[in-house]
Amino acid sequence: MNALGLVSMRLCAGLMGRRSAVNLPFLRFSSGMTLSQIDDEVAKLLQLKAQLGGDEGKHVFVLKTAKGTRDYNPKQMAIREKVFNIIVSCFKRHGAETIDTPVFELKETLTGKYGEDSKLIYDLKDQGGELLSLRYDLTVPFARYLALNKITNIKRYHIAKVYRRDNPAMTRGRYREFYQCDFDIAGQYDAMIPDAECLKIVYEILNELDLGDFRIKVNDRRILDGMFAVCGVPDEKFRTICSTVDKLDKTAWEDVRKEMVNEKGLSEDVADRIGAYVSMQGGQDLAERLLQDPKLSQNKQACAGLTDMKLLFSYLELFQVTDKVVFDLSLARGLDYYTGVIYEAVLSQTIPAPVCTPTEQNGADEAGVSVGSVAGGGRYDGLVGMFDPKGRKVPCVGVSIGIERIFSIMEQKAEASSVKVRTTETQVLVASAQKNLLEERLKLTSELWNAGIKAEVLYKKNPKLLSQLQHCEETGIPLVAILGEQELKDGVVKLRNVASREEVDVPRADLVDEIKTRTL
Amino acid sequence: MNALGLVSMRLCAGLMGRRSAVNLPFLRFSSGMTLSQIDDEVAKLLQLKAQLGGDEGKHVFVLKTAKGTRDYNPKQMAIREKVFNIIVSCFKRHGAETIDTPVFELKETLTGKYGEDSKLIYDLKDQGGELLSLRYDLTVPFARYLALNKITNIKRYHIAKVYRRDNPAMTRGRYREFYQCDFDIAGQYDAMIPDAECLKIVYEILNELDLGDFRIKVNDRRILDGMFAVCGVPDEKFRTICSTVDKLDKTAWEDVRKEMVNEKGLSEDVADRIGAYVSMQGGQDLAERLLQDPKLSQNKQACAGLTDMKLLFSYLELFQVTDKVVFDLSLARGLDYYTGVIYEAVLSQTIPAPVCTPTEQNGADEAGVSVGSVAGGGRYDGLVGMFDPKGRKVPCVGVSIGIERIFSIMEQKAEASSVKVRTTETQVLVASAQKNLLEERLKLTSELWNAGIKAEVLYKKNPKLLSQLQHCEETGIPLVAILGEQELKDGVVKLRNVASREEVDVPRADLVDEIKTRTL
Repeated sequence: MNALGLVSMRLCAGLMGRRSAVNLPFLRFSSGMTLSQIDDEVAKLLQLKAQLGGDEGKHVFVLKTAKGTRDYNPKQMAIREKVFNIIVSCFKRHGAETIDTPVFELKETLTGKYGEDSKLIYDLKDQGGELLSLRYDLTVPFARYLALNKITNIKRYHIAKVYRRDNPAMTRGRYREFYQCDFDIAGQYDAMIPDAECLKIVYEILNELDLGDFRIKVNDRRILDGMFAVCGVPDEKFRTICSTVDKLDKTAWEDVRKEMVNEKGLSEDVADRIGAYVSMQGGQDLAERLLQDPKLSQNKQACAGLTDMKLLFSYLELFQVTDKVVFDLSLARGLDYYTGVIYEAVLSQTIPAPVCTPTEQNGADEAGVSVGSVAGGGRYDGLVGMFDPKGRKVPCVGVSIGIERIFSIMEQKAEASSVKVRTTETQVLVASAQKNLLEERLKLTSELWNAGIKAEVLYKKNPKLLSQLQHCEETGIPLVAILGEQELKDGVVKLRNVASREEVDVPRADLVDEIKTRTL
Repeated sequence: MNALGLVSMRLCAGLMGRRSAVNLPFLRFSSGMTLSQIDDEVAKLLQLKAQLGGDEGKHVFVLKTAKGTRDYNPKQMAIREKVFNIIVSCFKRHGAETIDTPVFELKETLTGKYGEDSKLIYDLKDQGGELLSLRYDLTVPFARYLALNKITNIKRYHIAKVYRRDNPAMTRGRYREFYQCDFDIAGQYDAMIPDAECLKIVYEILNELDLGDFRIKVNDRRILDGMFAVCGVPDEKFRTICSTVDKLDKTAWEDVRKEMVNEKGLSEDVADRIGAYVSMQGGQDLAERLLQDPKLSQNKQACAGLTDMKLLFSYLELFQVTDKVVFDLSLARGLDYYTGVIYEAVLSQTIPAPVCTPTEQNGADEAGVSVGSVAGGGRYDGLVGMFDPKGRKVPCVGVSIGIERIFSIMEQKAEASSVKVRTTETQVLVASAQKNLLEERLKLTSELWNAGIKAEVLYKKNPKLLSQLQHCEETGIPLVAILGEQELKDGVVKLRNVASREEVDVPRADLVDEIKTRTL
């Protein structure tokens, strides 16, 4: 607080009685105010706050990134590029196009899509004009894109950052700004074919990333809803019980049961009936068995879901991915918009207990445990219709790869490995062994650039040869093109292999080809 | 406005007199309020606004992207990918690493860096915790990154979106969310060598993008300041006169002169002296001539700038780029942080007069004119020091490619051209000529995916052969692998060239190689 602020505080202390006296009638009156009058009052107050100088006076600038976010340094970017290449190659192999949408949407575009998670949405300040929010995922912007452009058929991927005001746990790869890699298929197609392709894609990507063993859990919202119905959960509690079931991946059944009974008001009988179902895991056989279940088989929703689950597994068989896919009745997923199949991939590998900073400590799930879900998705046949003025539906199914946790693992692998990660692709450094050759170095470098060679030159008039060679060793540049008086006279360049220290004179006219051959 | 809102408006109309009576003492009192008391009042008012129901009642959901932003469809993405590839290849050819920073920074990180443009910064809503703003460019986050990580030497590129609450002119490629492609060299080096490389990079990129003729204007903040000093501009007016000079690319000298005299309070003599200088353009010769100028040569700043300009041109000569580079004394650039060389690239090409929507009409600069600056940058030796707790300086020079205007031109080119832009890379569609072969199609497709072939299959149980072939024609898939009862019996696949309609039976074991060979 600055000097003015202190003065006004003292002033205020003496006026306290009067203040409440003035304040009360104001607030009593205010229930009759219009919205624009309120806006005016707010504006006046904020202006006053600005005049008082904010709290700049006592404030010390803190040099950091925003909470829950991080920079990527060149090494991390090299790893990121590798991961993205694997993912994009897979998406392209499956014939996907790509789109991009703005980082913010109209606030109301996001309203009513995320259930209890809506509180995690970042809003932009009202600076006049539209009310905006940062995107929370790529699925809702995709649905908005389809409705806006009246697209009824598309297979697209979208790799971009999304934003959640969640409790960050950065050592486990949980950030407030993070990448999602989404692949979705929109269109009216025959049952379970696109759904099976999404699972095939998750399988391929996790295999290629080489992150160790993994499992893909599959379930269906219709099976969950049918199960809740036959267990005796009242209709209006389906979504909230669904959220409770969703905690089973991190919480023991006893605690989930307690929440159902004590907080959500289910009877113990109902909870136990749910408990019997959600402990079931299997494959096509489980779907068949449940289709014979005396209660479930009477529920239309459950039957539709189970029949599709059987079909899905028959396609997964053809795609040869059933070794990793489990039909798991405890999988629920939090988001409101799913209408059919849902899935989630988890790595079996655990990551070492991280060194927690105080702000990152977050209970038991923080230490030496599974990195949790690295991919998830499902079918959302109703979402596009929520945006279409006439409610026209476009069935969609998709998957989102949660890349940050994968980065965390890859980074730790890179740290542990002795192989040095290169952060540039430079093929050759143009160097000189003598003084006063800056102009010749620049000229040769320019020639190489013009020929498409990745070349560097030190920005010094007279660098020592040793420091030029050191730069190569540090950054992994494999070749040095050395110029000297003699070489210039002879029309050659001394080409040195940094690793072997072997040197050979190359005629200047052949240099480009020689470098290309050596750095294929 | 909902029913409650209407009631409160009627209530209000009757209470108007009383309202002002209450309001006045409140505001009189408020000058003695503390900041937290103001916050409380604001919170109460906003709560009241929420209770009144906002304006949801009368509100109709509008399906659109936020003002000044756009989606990229698959065709635009294909063009974007091409442009990015050219730019990234150039940055890598020059030995750059890459980094990434969060889309938002602490608000105070951006404070005091952008002069008059600060009003265009997007702030995030105060939802508790830190005050954040969307990044306005990539330069300030880069400087913050260097200071935070105590980096004194780096050559990096960064391609990412930045945000400006500017008046959008989307047909001209001016958006509120747009990409910047930045290349910067940080470190204490010998004069003008990195600066020359930045200009070489702009030259290479604009050449390769094939956007027609262009010019790169160069000047130096020290020359500008020296010029202002010898013309008689008072020190404290340097920056504001600089902003006025910056308008010379769009505004005639007469109008710029008027602003200097009428708005900025310069005498007519001083303005005319500036006018004489800012009309000068040239190359190394101009720098030499001005070093002899009786007034400028007496100014230390100007001399340092002109000496460096001479040196810069000697390096540009070695890089063979002087045919496009002009030393232009009218180039000023708006941003506060530049300390030395500044530059800006403009295309000679004009783009056709766009069809303006009413919200986009923006005066004369909107129609059939130059697309303006497509790249700009300069030296900013003081910016990193603003973030360092001990004020340690890291000299930097960089360039930013303004990609949106380039996209606009490339898109218009693509529209005008008859060549169809492919949005997928699919090599083969797996099809069938008969019914009941879905499983066989899925199996073959999976085999191809596993072998790294980019393959698609229609998500229909029994698609017609015609619709399968049409899909190929529409999306540019060059090959079709057709399965039928006979082919399955014979262990072959009928491989069809979509363009030539030629078909040949390929043994199933040879299919992958055959597809690879045909789609090299």
